[in-house]
Amino acid sequence: MTKDELMRKAIELSIMNVNNGGGPFGAVIAKDGEIIAEGVNRVTAHSDPTAHAEVNAIRAACSKLGTFNLNGYEIYTSCEPCPMCLGAIYWARLDRMYYGNTKTDAKNIGFDDSFIYDEIELKPQDRKLPSEILLHQEALKGFEAWTAKMDKIEY
Amino acid sequence: MTKDELMRKAIELSIMNVNNGGGPFGAVIAKDGEIIAEGVNRVTAHSDPTAHAEVNAIRAACSKLGTFNLNGYEIYTSCEPCPMCLGAIYWARLDRMYYGNTKTDAKNIGFDDSFIYDEIELKPQDRKLPSEILLHQEALKGFEAWTAKMDKIEY
Repeated sequence: MTKDELMRKAIELSIMNVNNGGGPFGAVIAKDGEIIAEGVNRVTAHSDPTAHAEVNAIRAACSKLGTFNLNGYEIYTSCEPCPMCLGAIYWARLDRMYYGNTKTDAKNIGFDDSFIYDEIELKPQDRKLPSEILLHQEALKGFEAWTAKMDKIEY
Repeated sequence: MTKDELMRKAIELSIMNVNNGGGPFGAVIAKDGEIIAEGVNRVTAHSDPTAHAEVNAIRAACSKLGTFNLNGYEIYTSCEPCPMCLGAIYWARLDRMYYGNTKTDAKNIGFDDSFIYDEIELKPQDRKLPSEILLHQEALKGFEAWTAKMDKIEY
């Protein structure tokens, strides 16, 4: 499949998902023009605020391939990823992303993507989400255990 | 439980998880001092790059409560959330977050949290992750279908 055909598939998924009670978002993960996995937004359907199209596509691809690393693969998503999904794309080590709608388009139909981008750029104390550091010295013990562990799987 | 006790539980989970083959991250979700759900990092164990402690705790809490909205709940996490997890915290509508280690501490033991924060602040064309907009006009059809749908569940 060409790049346009792969994006068109992500768009088709976004439209189908609206008719299936979900949000208007679809994504596919591909390599060499072949789709390995698909995802759609099932936040309300599955009572899972993390069930965005990109997260679902990444989870499906990793489950299918038995890996947590999608190096060599690309994602085609019907909308520019929100920060959660963009973070997931980095952690999954995807090579490249293609998107259709922008975060401004998402904002225009009532989704908070732009708001969350704005918040993440702020220092914790300047965000609308209240936050506080607790027990910093005790928390470091977990990191010291990680550093000391000889047989860990790094990622 | 007090705030310190709730954070101490998240830290305990982070240490236990290292001994259980996972990353050094734990989180709990609580309301009025009562823990409703816990999460630990299972990225490598479950071949899922989205399986961070906070995402897992949010998914567990939502599954238990049958909701995609954790308004009224707080998250205690052993480390400052990465952008993926911070995004998930916003989407879950959690009231407040407490964290132990910082993203700089995470960077110091080899995790990419700081790098991803830096990348997300950049314009798409300036990021290390290559990206491209495709079929913008066609993609808008999914958003138009959403806008036109009368019985949608908004979030």
